[in-house]
Amino acid sequence: MLILGVDPGSRNTGYGVVLKEGNRLQHIVYGEIKPRKEEKFSGTLIEIYERLSGVIGRTKPQAIALENIFYGKNVRSLVMQAQVRGVVILSGAEKNTPIFEYSPLEIKKAVVGYGRAEKRQVQAMVRAILKLPVLPPADAADALAAAICHANFFKETSL
Amino acid sequence: MLILGVDPGSRNTGYGVVLKEGNRLQHIVYGEIKPRKEEKFSGTLIEIYERLSGVIGRTKPQAIALENIFYGKNVRSLVMQAQVRGVVILSGAEKNTPIFEYSPLEIKKAVVGYGRAEKRQVQAMVRAILKLPVLPPADAADALAAAICHANFFKETSL
Repeated sequence: MLILGVDPGSRNTGYGVVLKEGNRLQHIVYGEIKPRKEEKFSGTLIEIYERLSGVIGRTKPQAIALENIFYGKNVRSLVMQAQVRGVVILSGAEKNTPIFEYSPLEIKKAVVGYGRAEKRQVQAMVRAILKLPVLPPADAADALAAAICHANFFKETSL
Repeated sequence: MLILGVDPGSRNTGYGVVLKEGNRLQHIVYGEIKPRKEEKFSGTLIEIYERLSGVIGRTKPQAIALENIFYGKNVRSLVMQAQVRGVVILSGAEKNTPIFEYSPLEIKKAVVGYGRAEKRQVQAMVRAILKLPVLPPADAADALAAAICHANFFKETSL
């Protein structure tokens, strides 16, 4: 079972593919998509769409896991993030990959064991669970955490 | 000058293409994309993306006009609408069509003459301005209104 986790953002979109075999989890690839700051938003969406479609095409995950974003942000950043998220969902849907949503609480519980964990703790636990040689950058760690969450909980209803 | 206006929504996405020649405005096409209610959200995004890409490919607009959405909605509907909007922006950006944003106030002012106009008045004025034989449905009228707004104001900075 291959699971792609994505943490969508207009400045930085993290992604990470996790392989689940029995109870064993290992990472296949992770990274971050960081469009140039001078890039227009429309160009940013194209870059995220093309790079993510590339990752999905190469790794062929059976599921995509995303954090839901209905919680406390300012309206402007929420809209920007949701617009990126729409493009992320489209790139998965076009390849017939089911997309699953988890709350930040569910993801942190799955990875750190409790819901109020800090970003730094998520990074450290993701590194430990996947036996990564180095600490993954924060947004890639969040993406891997979403994938680990789906590997453990496996919700049935997709978007 | 051909302008495509779009009113993005997960239930109903209105669109309309307006031709500006000198001071004269006429409509080329308008319609609504209404995915089946039983459709998953991922399928909805694909349908909106494909149909809108088709409209852009056939009509080749020089600009796309959208209403911005930073005002008073509940968080869930705002996120859903923004996700659709991201896909709308992507479909324009992929065809190198610049995308321009207007506030609801700017659009209503451009069409009805004052910012607090009701939906029904927008429909009636869009019909009058474009000399349409029938009243366009509400979401197509909002899309045409965005296109008319861009035809009149022509903002310079695109998304």
